[in-house]
Amino acid sequence: MSDSVGIVTPQKWVFEEPITLSSGAVLPRYELMVETYGELNADKSNAILICHALSGHHHVAGYHTAEDKAPGWWDSMIGPGKPIDTNRFFVIGVNNLGGCHGSTGPSSINPATGEPYGSAFPVVLVRDWVETQARLADRLGIQQFAAVIGGSLGGMQALRWSITYPERIRHALVIASAPKLTTQNIAFNDVARQAILTDPEFHGGDFYQHGVVPRRGLRLARMLGHITYLSDGGMGEKFGRLLRTGEYQYGFDVEFEIESYLRYQGDKFANVFDANTYLLMTKALDYFDPARHYGGSLAEAMRQAKAKFLVVSFTTDWRFAPARSREIVKALLDADRTVSYAEIESQHGHDAFLMQDAPYMNVMRAYLNNVAKELV
Amino acid sequence: MSDSVGIVTPQKWVFEEPITLSSGAVLPRYELMVETYGELNADKSNAILICHALSGHHHVAGYHTAEDKAPGWWDSMIGPGKPIDTNRFFVIGVNNLGGCHGSTGPSSINPATGEPYGSAFPVVLVRDWVETQARLADRLGIQQFAAVIGGSLGGMQALRWSITYPERIRHALVIASAPKLTTQNIAFNDVARQAILTDPEFHGGDFYQHGVVPRRGLRLARMLGHITYLSDGGMGEKFGRLLRTGEYQYGFDVEFEIESYLRYQGDKFANVFDANTYLLMTKALDYFDPARHYGGSLAEAMRQAKAKFLVVSFTTDWRFAPARSREIVKALLDADRTVSYAEIESQHGHDAFLMQDAPYMNVMRAYLNNVAKELV
Repeated sequence: MSDSVGIVTPQKWVFEEPITLSSGAVLPRYELMVETYGELNADKSNAILICHALSGHHHVAGYHTAEDKAPGWWDSMIGPGKPIDTNRFFVIGVNNLGGCHGSTGPSSINPATGEPYGSAFPVVLVRDWVETQARLADRLGIQQFAAVIGGSLGGMQALRWSITYPERIRHALVIASAPKLTTQNIAFNDVARQAILTDPEFHGGDFYQHGVVPRRGLRLARMLGHITYLSDGGMGEKFGRLLRTGEYQYGFDVEFEIESYLRYQGDKFANVFDANTYLLMTKALDYFDPARHYGGSLAEAMRQAKAKFLVVSFTTDWRFAPARSREIVKALLDADRTVSYAEIESQHGHDAFLMQDAPYMNVMRAYLNNVAKELV
Repeated sequence: MSDSVGIVTPQKWVFEEPITLSSGAVLPRYELMVETYGELNADKSNAILICHALSGHHHVAGYHTAEDKAPGWWDSMIGPGKPIDTNRFFVIGVNNLGGCHGSTGPSSINPATGEPYGSAFPVVLVRDWVETQARLADRLGIQQFAAVIGGSLGGMQALRWSITYPERIRHALVIASAPKLTTQNIAFNDVARQAILTDPEFHGGDFYQHGVVPRRGLRLARMLGHITYLSDGGMGEKFGRLLRTGEYQYGFDVEFEIESYLRYQGDKFANVFDANTYLLMTKALDYFDPARHYGGSLAEAMRQAKAKFLVVSFTTDWRFAPARSREIVKALLDADRTVSYAEIESQHGHDAFLMQDAPYMNVMRAYLNNVAKELV
């Protein structure tokens, strides 16, 4: 298709310099799995970094082989002529440190032991990801990103970029995100974590050596997660109280279609995702709170930033409701920063940031069109 | 205390007549654990039935021993001079069939095998509970209840009473309830069930014979349930992002106070509640849909009723939001029935029906005062 970036090949970047993480833990070396689309221009001013959310990775657009059935996870947004236009921008996708898609993470071999890291892999914070992404930018010779863009946990990375490296980012696009988790957000994460941690096959995180996978726990975590990604109304429209067989079965097998959907999603995820990575990602969410080092003032935190902002929320998102995005907008205004805000009508709940609601696509296209115009 | 019903003693009622359940399954005999408070008047017109919710039971008010630290689960509502005034009403609490507090349930001995029922215990619907409660009323010589009252799943029983036995109930008090579950409600229930069903110690429901309990699954189910019982705001006010130690720990032990609270609640529950009963209760919730046999029209279902109704909802309840109560009210109005409706401002979410917000207590007191006045 003419609007696809086509066949893409991920590259592994090796960083032999040790990194000291926020927790104090040190990784002596690490690797990042990366994909890029489009061409970096002569003055290296057209680079856009895409930050992924909980279960995302570096494969953001295009296909790995001609036989691939599904493209990268944000293919709707990225490609020639798409809102993030690869004819104009050089787009970078990276699997975050701690991930399970090729970057160094809990399932990678720990050079100190010759075994998978497992429980020895340190907790990673959003700021640690930003640090590794900045080192990647150094390698690519990118001094300043045209934009850093992310949805959900990805939006938190864009926010953190704007605070930690104000000179290195011209625009931050923060979509379906929040300045920190609510108590309820943390509570859901903890149930998901407890499902994994108490799975007998988790083995304290060192299940790799036992030849098993804590599939039950990961499946439950994903099922629960899915409920929070969808809106009550959207779920109702799609599944309602539809029965699998049309009649009550009076048992514990699949009865309602929604059960079938959730169990399928849980099973699928449990077969491919790493349980330790899931734990790490949820902790990064819990810990994110940029106001924390500024006396609890998000406005003070945002005063560090020099970027311009686009903040986007979705009406039926109850995981990170529009009110959470408005907190970010208010802090930016209080800090005298430039911010555009769009609250998009959508039935897709939190997942809307991955969907193609026309008003959303139009907002993204218009904003990034202006970002492109700044390029000479 | 002068407003307590004092020390009460539960009674076990034995029903030797078989009961055919909605599923078609037959129980040859069953027992119900019952408590009563106050005195049945001469014409037996002052009886009030209290229906319990998911984890409730017959012990609704008072204490079992002088050493008891906590009274019955609705002691705030029931007693001399309280809204449900035991000086005027004869109040009945009953542990529902399938329960785990003395009534016949999955942990009871199956007469056919001499072993606990376990997986052989049939699914029970709200209408089945109403049937067993009606038989209990027959035994007590109660032809007509002054009121049937319940919160959440208990409210569904009150609704069902009004439809199935219109002549036997003068008032139905339906609190923090819903006319049927939404897709999201079912989805949460299914995650809870899957946590139990996939616990290796569940043994297909026959864990009793293995000398184990599916504690991990039940604990997760309860943790998840608790999130849906509390409001996001109320949880935020109580726990916020408060850290156990004041500092990030960068690990998977308790970090935030909310985690400590949820895990404690989960552990406590898993030590006392029966996993099979939990499964049954969630299925009863899923199946409840009185409109189903009236062409999907709740108004048509409610047209069967002769009772007067009080419907109560709480502003921050997102498990059964006020909109769900308003569906009931609208159906009752469409059916030309008499209904009072109170939407109570509360921070307590779904749990508010067990709390003592003054406006709520006042509404209950005023309504039941009028119910008492009808008694000669």
